[in-house]
Amino acid sequence: MVSTTWAPPAPLVAHPPPSRPSGDVPSAAPPAIDVAAAQRYMEGHDHATRAAVLDVMASSPTFRLVAGESKEVERQRTAARWSELAAAGVFVNTITSADPVAGRGKLDAVHETASLLDYSLCIGMSVHFSLFGGSIAALGTPAQAAAWLPGVEALTMRGCFALTELGHGSNARGVETEARFDAAADAFVLHTPSDGAQKYWIGGAAFTARWAVAFAQLYLPGEGDSRGVHAFVVRIRADDGAPVPGVLLADCGYKVGLNGVDNGRIWFTAVPVPRAQLLARYARVDAAGVYSCDAPSPDALFGVTMGALSGGRIGIAASGVGQARVALAIAVRYGLRRRAFAAAPGAPETLLLDYPMHRRRLLPRLATTVVHQGCLNDLKARWGGRLSAKDGHVASCGYKALMTWHALDTMQVAREACGGQGYKSENRIAVSRAALDISATFEGDNTVLLQQVAKACLATYARGVKAGGRFGGALTHLNRAPPPPPSVGTVAFAVHTLQRAEASLLPRLAAAIAATSATPGTTSFDAFTAHQVAADAVARVHTQLLLLASFTSSVAAAPASTRPLLETLGTLHALAVLDDNAVLLCTGALSSADAAAVHGAMDGLCTALRPRAAELADVMTIPDFLLAPIAFDVVAHNSRARL
Amino acid sequence: MVSTTWAPPAPLVAHPPPSRPSGDVPSAAPPAIDVAAAQRYMEGHDHATRAAVLDVMASSPTFRLVAGESKEVERQRTAARWSELAAAGVFVNTITSADPVAGRGKLDAVHETASLLDYSLCIGMSVHFSLFGGSIAALGTPAQAAAWLPGVEALTMRGCFALTELGHGSNARGVETEARFDAAADAFVLHTPSDGAQKYWIGGAAFTARWAVAFAQLYLPGEGDSRGVHAFVVRIRADDGAPVPGVLLADCGYKVGLNGVDNGRIWFTAVPVPRAQLLARYARVDAAGVYSCDAPSPDALFGVTMGALSGGRIGIAASGVGQARVALAIAVRYGLRRRAFAAAPGAPETLLLDYPMHRRRLLPRLATTVVHQGCLNDLKARWGGRLSAKDGHVASCGYKALMTWHALDTMQVAREACGGQGYKSENRIAVSRAALDISATFEGDNTVLLQQVAKACLATYARGVKAGGRFGGALTHLNRAPPPPPSVGTVAFAVHTLQRAEASLLPRLAAAIAATSATPGTTSFDAFTAHQVAADAVARVHTQLLLLASFTSSVAAAPASTRPLLETLGTLHALAVLDDNAVLLCTGALSSADAAAVHGAMDGLCTALRPRAAELADVMTIPDFLLAPIAFDVVAHNSRARL
Ligand SMILES: Cc1cc2nc3c(=O)[nH]c(=O)nc-3n(C[C@H](O)[C@H](O)[C@H](O)COP(=O)(O)OP(=O)(O)OC[C@H]3O[C@@H](n4cnc5c(N)ncnc54)[C@H](O)[C@@H]3O)c2cc1C
Ligand SMILES: Cc1cc2nc3c(=O)[nH]c(=O)nc-3n(C[C@H](O)[C@H](O)[C@H](O)COP(=O)(O)OP(=O)(O)OC[C@H]3O[C@@H](n4cnc5c(N)ncnc54)[C@H](O)[C@@H]3O)c2cc1C
Repeated sequence: MVSTTWAPPAPLVAHPPPSRPSGDVPSAAPPAIDVAAAQRYMEGHDHATRAAVLDVMASSPTFRLVAGESKEVERQRTAARWSELAAAGVFVNTITSADPVAGRGKLDAVHETASLLDYSLCIGMSVHFSLFGGSIAALGTPAQAAAWLPGVEALTMRGCFALTELGHGSNARGVETEARFDAAADAFVLHTPSDGAQKYWIGGAAFTARWAVAFAQLYLPGEGDSRGVHAFVVRIRADDGAPVPGVLLADCGYKVGLNGVDNGRIWFTAVPVPRAQLLARYARVDAAGVYSCDAPSPDALFGVTMGALSGGRIGIAASGVGQARVALAIAVRYGLRRRAFAAAPGAPETLLLDYPMHRRRLLPRLATTVVHQGCLNDLKARWGGRLSAKDGHVASCGYKALMTWHALDTMQVAREACGGQGYKSENRIAVSRAALDISATFEGDNTVLLQQVAKACLATYARGVKAGGRFGGALTHLNRAPPPPPSVGTVAFAVHTLQRAEASLLPRLAAAIAATSATPGTTSFDAFTAHQVAADAVARVHTQLLLLASFTSSVAAAPASTRPLLETLGTLHALAVLDDNAVLLCTGALSSADAAAVHGAMDGLCTALRPRAAELADVMTIPDFLLAPIAFDVVAHNSRARL
Repeated sequence: MVSTTWAPPAPLVAHPPPSRPSGDVPSAAPPAIDVAAAQRYMEGHDHATRAAVLDVMASSPTFRLVAGESKEVERQRTAARWSELAAAGVFVNTITSADPVAGRGKLDAVHETASLLDYSLCIGMSVHFSLFGGSIAALGTPAQAAAWLPGVEALTMRGCFALTELGHGSNARGVETEARFDAAADAFVLHTPSDGAQKYWIGGAAFTARWAVAFAQLYLPGEGDSRGVHAFVVRIRADDGAPVPGVLLADCGYKVGLNGVDNGRIWFTAVPVPRAQLLARYARVDAAGVYSCDAPSPDALFGVTMGALSGGRIGIAASGVGQARVALAIAVRYGLRRRAFAAAPGAPETLLLDYPMHRRRLLPRLATTVVHQGCLNDLKARWGGRLSAKDGHVASCGYKALMTWHALDTMQVAREACGGQGYKSENRIAVSRAALDISATFEGDNTVLLQQVAKACLATYARGVKAGGRFGGALTHLNRAPPPPPSVGTVAFAVHTLQRAEASLLPRLAAAIAATSATPGTTSFDAFTAHQVAADAVARVHTQLLLLASFTSSVAAAPASTRPLLETLGTLHALAVLDDNAVLLCTGALSSADAAAVHGAMDGLCTALRPRAAELADVMTIPDFLLAPIAFDVVAHNSRARL
C-alpha cells in the first residue's frame, strides 16, 4: 500500500449551494450579504461551464483526492481526470471557437474550476491548450491555425510548450536551441548545441506530449547571427509514445508538488522540421531561404513571440486566487467550530474566530482575495479588445506577481490558522500550497515581472516629461496637485496615499537612473539594475493602484445587492494595503498618525465583519465537495466508529 | 518504481570544510572572514558530537536523500537512520548523564545535526528523548528517572509524548483523558471519554512507540473535580508491537511533509496504570488514595508539568535556523554561478548575486539567520542554570515563534531565488520547507506563544508600576529617559528604536486592558483577549530586543577574529528588523526620514557584502554532502551523459 484515499466527509453531493457551517455563529447580525449574487460576482463569467466541470468532478470517483502516490500514479490520475472532462465536452468550441473571446472565456472557466481541485490538472491542461494551442493561435498563420487547432482541441494532437532551457529561464531571449534553415531539405534543422541548451521543465514532455511548440534561435544560410527566437511546431513522439529519431526525452523528477505534471527535458539532435512548421504569422522563410518579418524590430518580434504567456499569466493569477479562496473557506469554517481556551476551567471555550488576532489574520486576506477576484474578472472582460496590448501586458505582470504571492501568504496563514489539522494532507490547504508554490516563479518569475511593471512606468513617465509634464495612461494623477486627503478608512484614502507615494518614488527613480546613466560606459541595463530595489517599490505601488481602480469599476458594474459587501471588503483590503507597508511611511505619503489610524480601523472592520463570517466563507464560492473534513464536523470525521 | 534516489553531485565525501563555490566570484575583496572560526561560532557547542553525526550521515547510503516514497517506506528509512546513529554511540551519556547540562548539550547537537538532513529523523528522536525522556527526567522522582531513563537512552524503551487531543491542542490544560485512581487495584484507570478526547498527532504512536507519557486529568475517589493534568508512564504496545488490551491505535495519515514521523491517535479504554507510574516528582497519590502536591497552586503545577516543552521549543527553533542555513548556503552558491540577462544580446550575462534585488532578498535573511544562531547558542549556554525558569520560558516562546517564522520565510525566498530549480525535490529547499512548516504550530503555536511573551511583559510592567515606577528585568530601560539617538546604521539605533516603541506600546496596552477590565463582568481573560492584536506587537518588539541583547553579548564573548563579521551581520540584521516594520513607524519610534535612511543603508551593506558572498555561504556551516546539485555545477549534474 503506497497510498490512502480520503473520502470527503459527506457523500459526494451536487455542488451549489455551499451549506452554512452548522457551528455556532452568533445570529444577532442580520444576514445582509446576498450570497448567491456575490457568488456569481466571484465566478465572473461562464457559469454554465463552471457548473458542468463541477458536476464531473463532484460525481466521478476519479476526482477523489488521494495522498502519497508516486509521480507515475499521480500523472495517470491527472490524465484520467482530463479525459473525463474531455468526455463531458467542456473543451468543445474553446480554441477553435469562431468567437475567440468566448472561446477563451470558456477555457478559462474550465481551467479555473479544475484548479480548485487539482493544480496539476489545471497546469497540464493549460500548458496544452493555452501555451501550445495558444502559441499556434497567436503565432501561426490562419492556415496553420486551421490545420492544427482542431486536433489540439480534440486532444488528438497533444502538445507541450518548449521554451525554457536549463541555462535560460527568465531570460527566454537567451535560449540557445538552434534552428538552421536547410533549403535543400526545405526544412529547419533543430539542434541542441550543449547541455545547457536542453529544454528543461517542459510540462508534458516527460510522457504525454506528442508535439511541441519549440522556441529556437533562427539561423539562415550564410548568416552568423541569429534572427532571434522563433517558434516551431515539432513532433517529439510518435503516436505510440516513442520519441521520434533525434529527440531525446527525460524526466525532470520529483518536485515538492505538482507531480501530476510530467515536466521533462528535451535534446534535439539535428531534427528536421518542415519549413511549413515555422509558426509564420509574423515572420517566415521562403523556399529560397529568404526571410521576411512584419515586426518593426527584433524587440517587437520577441514581444509578440512571447505573447501567449500574457494570457497564461492571468490564468496563473486566477488559479492562485481560486486556491486562496478554498483555503479561506476551510479556515474560516474551522474557526467557526473550533474552540480553544476559556476564561476559567470548565467555562465554555472561545471560538477561534472570536479571537481578534484570529480574525485579523484571516479577514483582511479574505478581503484582498475578493478584490483580486474582482480585478481579474474585470481584466478578463477588458482583455478581449478594450485593452491595449501594453496595458494588458503590464497588468498581467503586476497582477500575477502580487496575486500569487498573496495567495501563497494566505494559504500559509490559513494552514496555521487550522493548527495541526491544517498540516494534514486531507485538509488540502498545505498540499495545495506546495503545488501553488511554483506559481511565484513560473510563467514569469514574480521579481522579474515587477521589473517589467517598473520599466513600463518609467517609459510612461519619460513620455510625460518629454511632453512637457503632461502624463498619460495610469500616470494622469501626476498632472494635478494632490487633492486634500479623504478620510482615513476609505478606498479613496488608499488611492490618495498610493498616488502620493508613486508621485514621490517614480520621479526619484527616474532621476536616479538618469544620474547613473550619466557615468560613461554605463548601459541602460546597468543603470536600471543599479536601482532595482527602488524599482520594485514603484512596481508594487503602481500595481496596487491598478488594482484599486479596477476593483472600483468592477463594483460600480456589479449588481446593487452585492455592492455593500464589496465596498466593505474593498475598504478592508485598502486598509490592509496601507498597513504594514513601510515604503509608504518612508516616503511620507502616509503619516505615522494616519498609519496608526489605519491599523486601528482594520481591527474595527474585522470585528464588524465577525457576525458575517459564515456567509463570507460561502462567498468564497467553493462547493462542499471541494472543502475538507475540518470544514465540517472534525470529531465525527475522526471518530472511532469510522476506523 | 515508486521512488527515485538522487545521488549527491559528488561522491559522498568527508564533510568539513565546505568547499568554496568554484563559480566566478570577484576576487577583488580580500577574504576578511575567518571562516573556520565563524563555523565554530555557528556550531556553538559539542563539535565532536556534531562531527560524529556528520560522519555517519556522510558515509552511510541509508542517509542518501530519496523523494516520492510512501509514508510507510519513509518511516522505515527514518528508523534505519536512527538505528545507525544509535550504533555509532551518539546517544550514550545524554539523558542519563551525571551532568545533565552536558548531556543535554550532546543530545541537542545530535538533533540539530540530524535536522540538517532529515527533519523527520530529528523530530522522531526528539519526541522520544526530549519529550518522552525529558518528561520522565523533569516530572519523575529520582527513582523513576533511574528506573526508566537508561532504557530510554538505550532505545529499549521506545516512547511517545501523548498530550494533544483531537479537541485540545494549544489549550493543553483542557485535555479530557481521565485517570481515575482505583485504590483496590492500586492503579489509575486511564480512559478516553469521547472521540474528542482521543490523543491525536502523537509522534511515534502509529508504529514505533511501546510506551507513552500520557497526560490526563487526575480524579481521586469521591471527587467530582479533576486535580489537574498529570503525567503517566503507560505501556501502549507489547514488545512485539501489538497494542496492549484497552489501547486502540490509529494512524494520523499523510501530511504535507514530515511523513517519516508516524503520528498516531490513541484511545484508552479503562487501561490500568500502576500507581508507581504516575510521574511523582511534584504530585503523588499514596496507596490510600491521598493526594499530595508540592506546587503552590494548580497554575504552578500545570506550569511545571509542561516544563519539558520549553527545552523542546528551543530545539524546534534550532532546527528552523539550521534548515534556513542549508537553504541559504544553497541559494547563495547558486546565485554565484547562475546568470540571467545581459546588457546586450551576446554580452556576458549577469550573475544573480550581482543584481541588487537578489542580494537584498538573500543577504539580510542570512544576517538574521546568523544572529538567531548566535542567540540560540547564547540561550542554551545560559539555560543550564544561569537563567530563571521564567526568563527561559519567555525566551523559548519568543525565540521559537520568531525564529521558525523567519526560517520559513527565508526558505521560501531561497527557493524562489533558485527559480524553478528551487522547486525540485533533489535541491532540498522546498521539501525541507514543507517539513519545517509544521514548526509554526507545534510545540506551541507561534501566535499563542507570542501571547505568553506579552503576558510576561505585562506582568513585569505591572510589578514595576506597583513598585512606584521602578521596572525590573528586561524592562529596566523604562526607568530612564531615552538617551539621544545613536546614528542610524547601528545595532544601538535599533535597540534605541525598539525600546522607544516598547515604551510606547506596553503602557498603552496595559492601560487599554485595564480600561476593558473595568467593565463589570469582564474577566481578565476577556480583557486580554480584546487587545490581542496590540499584545502581539508588544511581544514581537520585546523579543527582538531580547535577541539583540543576547547577540551583543554573544559577539562580545566570540573569538576576536569573528567579531568584524558578526558585527556587520548584526548591523544588517538590526536594519532589517527596523525596515518594513510598520509598527515602529506607527508609534513614532522611527521617523519617516530615519526609516528611509535605514532602507538605504540596507542596500549599501548588501552591496558591501557582495564580494564576500562565497564565504558567507561557507559560514552557514553546511558540509557539501548536505547541499544540493544546484550548489555545484548544475549543467554537469543534468548532462546528457548522466542519463
Ligand atoms: C513545475 C514547472 C513547470 C514549468 N513548465 C514550463 C513549461 O511547460 N514550458 C517552459 O518553457 N518552461 C516551463 N517552466 C520553466 C519556468 O518558466 C522557469 O522556471 C521560469 O521562467 C524561471 O526561470 P528559471 O527557473 O531559470 O529562474 P531564473 O531565471 O534562473 O531566476 C532565478 C532567480 O533569479 C532572479 N532573477 C533573474 N533575473 C533577475 C534580474 N534581472 N534581477 C533580479 N533578479 C533576477 C529571479 O527573481 C529568480 O528568483 C516550468 C518550471 C517549473 C518549475
Ligand atoms: C506533525 C505533528 C506532530 C505533533 N506531535 C505531537 C506529539 O508528539 N505529541 C503531542 O502531544 N502533540 C503533538 N502535536 C500536536 C501539536 O502540539 C498541536 O498541533 C499544537 O499544540 C497546536 O494545537 P492545535 O493543532 O489543536 O491548534 P489549535 O490550538 O486549535 O489552534 C488553531 C489556531 O487557532 C489559533 N488560536 C488558538 N488559541 C488562540 C488564542 N487564544 N488567541 C488567538 N488565536 C488562537 C492558533 O494561533 C492557531 O492558529 C503534533 C502536531 C503535528 C501536526
